[in-house]
Parts: sequence; C-alpha cells; structure tokens
Amino acid sequence: MNRKNAFYAQSGGVTAVINSTACGLIESARQYPQQIEKVFAGRNGIIGALREELIDTSCESKSAIAALRHTPGGAFGSCRYKLKGLDEYQREYKRLIDVFAAHNIGYFFYNGGGDSADTCLKVSQLAETMGYPIQAIHIPKTVDNDLPITDNCPGFGSVAKYIAIATREASFDVASMAENSTKVFVLEVMGRHAGWIAAAGGMAATNDCPLPIVILFPEIPFNEQNFLARIQQHVETSGYCSVVVSEGVKDSQGQFLANQGSKDAFGHAQLGGVAPVIAAQIRNGLGFKYHWAVADYLQRAARHIASATDVEQAYALGKAAVEMALNGENAIMPTIERLTDTPYHWQIGKAPLENVANVEKMMPREFISVDGFGITEACRRYLQPLITGESYPPYQDGMPQYIRLKRQLTKKKLASDFELR
Amino acid sequence: MNRKNAFYAQSGGVTAVINSTACGLIESARQYPQQIEKVFAGRNGIIGALREELIDTSCESKSAIAALRHTPGGAFGSCRYKLKGLDEYQREYKRLIDVFAAHNIGYFFYNGGGDSADTCLKVSQLAETMGYPIQAIHIPKTVDNDLPITDNCPGFGSVAKYIAIATREASFDVASMAENSTKVFVLEVMGRHAGWIAAAGGMAATNDCPLPIVILFPEIPFNEQNFLARIQQHVETSGYCSVVVSEGVKDSQGQFLANQGSKDAFGHAQLGGVAPVIAAQIRNGLGFKYHWAVADYLQRAARHIASATDVEQAYALGKAAVEMALNGENAIMPTIERLTDTPYHWQIGKAPLENVANVEKMMPREFISVDGFGITEACRRYLQPLITGESYPPYQDGMPQYIRLKRQLTKKKLASDFELR
Repeated sequence: MNRKNAFYAQSGGVTAVINSTACGLIESARQYPQQIEKVFAGRNGIIGALREELIDTSCESKSAIAALRHTPGGAFGSCRYKLKGLDEYQREYKRLIDVFAAHNIGYFFYNGGGDSADTCLKVSQLAETMGYPIQAIHIPKTVDNDLPITDNCPGFGSVAKYIAIATREASFDVASMAENSTKVFVLEVMGRHAGWIAAAGGMAATNDCPLPIVILFPEIPFNEQNFLARIQQHVETSGYCSVVVSEGVKDSQGQFLANQGSKDAFGHAQLGGVAPVIAAQIRNGLGFKYHWAVADYLQRAARHIASATDVEQAYALGKAAVEMALNGENAIMPTIERLTDTPYHWQIGKAPLENVANVEKMMPREFISVDGFGITEACRRYLQPLITGESYPPYQDGMPQYIRLKRQLTKKKLASDFELR
Repeated sequence: MNRKNAFYAQSGGVTAVINSTACGLIESARQYPQQIEKVFAGRNGIIGALREELIDTSCESKSAIAALRHTPGGAFGSCRYKLKGLDEYQREYKRLIDVFAAHNIGYFFYNGGGDSADTCLKVSQLAETMGYPIQAIHIPKTVDNDLPITDNCPGFGSVAKYIAIATREASFDVASMAENSTKVFVLEVMGRHAGWIAAAGGMAATNDCPLPIVILFPEIPFNEQNFLARIQQHVETSGYCSVVVSEGVKDSQGQFLANQGSKDAFGHAQLGGVAPVIAAQIRNGLGFKYHWAVADYLQRAARHIASATDVEQAYALGKAAVEMALNGENAIMPTIERLTDTPYHWQIGKAPLENVANVEKMMPREFISVDGFGITEACRRYLQPLITGESYPPYQDGMPQYIRLKRQLTKKKLASDFELR
C-alpha cells in the first residue's frame, strides 16, 4: 500500500473532549506506520492547511498524546472559517491541494460540526472535481448535539453532565436561602438553535431528588405571562425555583430575548446575556429576590467533570475514522449508534457525508413536556447514558494537569504564502 | 454533668462545605450523649430559633448525617437575618431565651460569617445580660474569607479551587479559538469587599502552565486605560487573555462598576453583572471578540470539585466547637492556625469572639502584584494548600448523590408564635 500522510484539523467551538478524539486518531494512526507515515495537524484548524502551518504530531511523545484524552480545549488550535462551494472558494481548494500534494497527504480528517461536514464533503470530492486523490472523513464534534444520523455528538454529553450537576448544586443552594433571601436562580446555557443543552438542566431533578426546575427552550416561543405563573407556582409549592434558559430563547415574533434586553452606559445594545433579561422579568413581575449565572465557556471547557461516556465515544470516533480511512472509505462520518438504553449499549456506525452536511437535528417535540417547561421520560432515557460516568483528569497541587503540546511545525515546502480572505 | 441540648444554626450565604461542619458537629455531639442529649438545628437558621422551628437531628440516620460531609448548600436552611444590639433587639433575645429554656438548650453553635459572629457574641453574654446560662461558640464559614484571626475560612478553599480550575479550563478554550475568533474571556466572581476569590483565578497559571490572566480586585481602583493596555499587551504576546473580575470592583470614585453598566428594556438599572460591563469596554476600546461568564452560585455550590483541605477543615471546626463547648468555653470561635506552608500543617486554635465580630480581613497589599493585576508569590504560598486535594462525592447515574434530610421539627412547647420584624 502507498504510504501517505494524514491531515487532521479541529474546527469551530472546542469542547471538553475534542482532544480525546485527537488522541484516539493519533494513537490509532501510530499503529499503522506502513500505511500512515505521519499525522499533521492544522495549526488553528483548516487555516493551518491554507497557511501550510502543519503541526508534526510525530514530535509529540506517547505520554503527551495520551494526555490529550483528559485535556479540554483544542490542543492544535481551532478556527471559525467556512470553506463554501468550489466555485466561490476555488482559490482555497486549489491551495489545499497544493499543500496536501507538497506534504503527500492522502487522508483528510475534519473534526467539527455541521459547517465542517459540508467542507469535508467538498474535500472528499476533490479527486473528482479537481483531480487530487484524497479520502475525507468527518469526525463529529459539537456541544450543540445537532448533527443528524449519529445518536449523539461528542462534546455534548460532558456539557450536559456539567449543566445537570450545576443546576442540582445551585438548586440546593437557593433552597437553603429561600426563606428570606434568594428565591429564584437563573442559569443561562448554550444552544442558540436547539435546546439539547437546556434539556440537560432537567436531569438535575430525579425521582430520588425532585427539584423545581423551569426550562426555557429555543424551540418553544417564550410567553412571559405563562413563565411567571409557573415560577410563582413553584415558589408557592417549594419555596424556590431554578430556571435553565437557553441563550437562543425567542419571543413569539421570533426575536432573541437576549437582544431585547439591556443597553450599556453608552447606549450600545449589550450582546448576549438572556439570564439578566429573565431575571429582570422575575423581579419586575413577581418581586422575588434572584441570582443569575451565565456558564458560557465554563460549560464546554469543564473537563474536570466530563462524562466518561463522552470521553470514551470521542476517543472511539477518532480511532474509527482512521480505520475507515484505511478501509478505503471516503465522504463519510463515523457515528454513534445506540443499541439499547438500559443497559446502555452502542456501536460505531457510519453516515454518508451528503446526508450530514447542512442538516440540523432539533429536539423532538416529544422530548419537551406538554407545557413546554420541562423534559419528558423519553428525553430522560435519551440523556441518561450520555451523562453517565466520571472521567477525572490527574491532579497536582490541587489543579488538573492538562497537557500543552510542543506544536512543532513541519518545514514549509511551498514558495508562496496564502492570504486568508 | 448537667445534660443539655444544643442548638446549631447555619447563617448567611451557604457554601460547598458548611454541611461538612454540621456533620463534624453532629457526629461529635453524638459521642457525648451524657453531656449533650440532642442537637437541634434551626430551620432556616436563626429564624428557626425565633419561630421555635427546631429540627431534631436525632431523627436523622447515621448515614444521612455522614452524607452531609459531601452535600452542598445548607441542609437545615439558612437566612440573612442580623440580630443587632440587645437594646434594639431585646424582644428577639428574650424570645431566644424563651425557646432555649423551653427546650433545655445550653449550647449555642452559630455557623456563619462576620455578622453572625457579632450575634453569637451577644448570645454568649445572655447569662450576664439577661440571666440565661448558655455557652455560645461561633464556627467560621464564609466564601469571602474575610474573618480575622483564623488563617482561612471554610467555604473559601472550595470556591478558590473552583475559580482556579474554571479559569484554567476557559483559558485553554479561548487559546484554541483566538486565531480568528474569541480573544478575551471574562469571568465574574464573588467577593464584594475583599479580593480573595478573584485572587484564586491567579492560581490557574503556574510555572508549568503559564497563562495570560488579568485579575481585577475590589482593593484596586479600576483604571480603564491601564486595564485595556494590559489586555492589548497579553493579546499581542500570547494571542489571547483571560480576565477574572471581582463583582466588587470600583472605579476611582469608589462606585461599583457593575452599577454603571446597563439598563434593561424598561430603563431600570440592571442589577449585578460587572462582566458584561468589562466585556463592553474591551469591545469598544480594543475591538476584540470576547466571551463572558458569571459564576454566581455555581462557584459556592460546586461540591463536585470541593477542596479536600476545605472539607476536612470544615469538619474539624464543627468537631472542635463541640469539644470546646464541653470544656466550658464560651464566646469563642475555633480557628485554623497555619503552622507551615510546605508541607502544609495546620491545627485548630481559638479566638475570643470580641476580637472577631465586626472585623473584616482584606487582602494584604503584598498579595497583589505591583501593577495591581495579579498575585504575588506570597499569595500563592497562602492559597496553595487551601485548594489542594480533591474530595469527590459519590455518583449514581452520572449525578452526585447529595443528601436531603428529613428535617423533622420537634414539638413546640411555647404557646405564642413570634412575628419576625
């Protein structure tokens, strides 16, 4: 077999487990030295390929690569850079081919969400469209959990676990304070289009540990009157309430609540922050004392409390990508196939990229309770295995030991630089 | 010895480890059944004493009490209710004596911060001032770490660990995104008067793991120009920067930055939220893309990543309080005395309450770097042992198993109810 190099890039928002996928991919590739000579990683994602900034992962020790499994963020750097159609981005695809050819790259592994799947599909067609033979495999990654076909997306389970735990812990806190102080706690979570992450807040409450929680989903148009009535009801019954609000919640006209809110001292619209908007409604409408939090990056970087299921699946998908490539596959994405809920069994499957690109998987309506403020048993069955298991990083002096790689670039071979648009 | 009952109350904002103190206190009291018949806990703190709502902790199983050690929040409920001087609050102190007498209470354990120390001092004087014999012991608790004499306060170490880890994790995230997306991450932390919690953000960076971090302390008047220059410098050098900002940061006129910021859609001043104010300054002044988070209750409820040192000390102080009471002590607070930094050794000491009440311990200036944006080596030596060690709660189905007590009230003996002011 013709020995080739592989190119791997991290794309879009990073997660607590995207490096676990990198670990699975690099460790697996190292087991096939006759087929894959080196894995080059794009410095800052696909931008690294365009700039011919290729990190030579063979310079990283075995233990450094192993440590990727417990390190959050994107170890090689990521970027938000969408390569669109071949017509519009011909110059970029041509450059990719120049770089790939110069470095004998025959395998392209792209680790990202929906936009990346589309780019990966275009790369998979370069043999046909531009005469450069390459196999392109997309590896799913997104905290938003909105890729189709795969049962779930690496990165999501760990955010879900974080949000479920944070909601439980904060609920215990506000319950303690409710008698004559804070009665409502509001937690803003990610998920601009789909309510998967907000749904995870519902997992804070169980039969053993009931908690009054109201979830605001982007899928359900926000109705202030119904919302305040629900809060009032919980406070009357339980003395307190926690609210988990998706950053993507919209009103009945489809406007983001976050944008309706505040202006800064200079009169500029304040970006982000639906939690303070919701909190102000509670104060103005009900007069309850409240606290609010915005988890933001903390939720997707929280490797210290990652889901063991998520870490394992992220690794397995990186490994599967290599194996599929060596089996001659192209234009596919390895997926998680759920076999059973309880006990949870899953296996690796695969999906044609043309069925993945540009398709968003929203929360099914039957996962949201009839009143629109909670999750159903079906949703619980879906979420439960994804948050199960703890996968603690090693600690030293009280701090998690996350690896930083050497990130040594391989020597450039092309004469020209490339100007990003 | 005369067998008496004990009264225990949780006061003010709760923490990840205040229940560990309750655990130490109740487990220890149960070892002296000849001296302490029962421990009654105030339902919702001191309010429970005034209302004669006394939780009979003898109804709780041994395993339930043991589980308090790993449960956040205040298991018996807390409140913000300051009993001031005897003159002004004579009716309240009279009521306390009625309730204590009706339930044969001879020991008063008050678990809180500075205000509670003052109340506890007043209670300790009830024998002298109002003829009711009682021993009052204050047990320190505050995430703000601002009580005097004790080397540190239970609750603080766990928040410090949480903030240090969150800052490290978010820094790894933003470092990955910085090439063409987010360059600055802003994390708002608690601490309205003292910068202890903000300082903990500095522990995210170590010699092994340097990170560009800017800390904004309440002790240092905020100067926008210097701040933006520092951010600019970090972004030029490292490509990104994390900012840890105390909610209590003030400008040179002594005004809270959080109050200068935003108004909601109705023109009301938005309460809280210095992070978005800082973020807007970064956008307007430097044009960098940013993200911001507000940790709020998440930081003080995060029992899932509590400091083992903190959990152990919280327990030890509860135990010591009982032992001191049985030794006939009154009007004191058990303290943590640091013996050595490395290896860390500490012991229990004690402080007269009259020296504790109404004294706030601020960050020493020598713990803050000369430029006002970081911590010094002396500060690191102080903080290091407090965040050391992990003390994980048990998990089931991916969720931490936190106990909820039965909280059974003992039968009331007084005819009258009490109207809270």
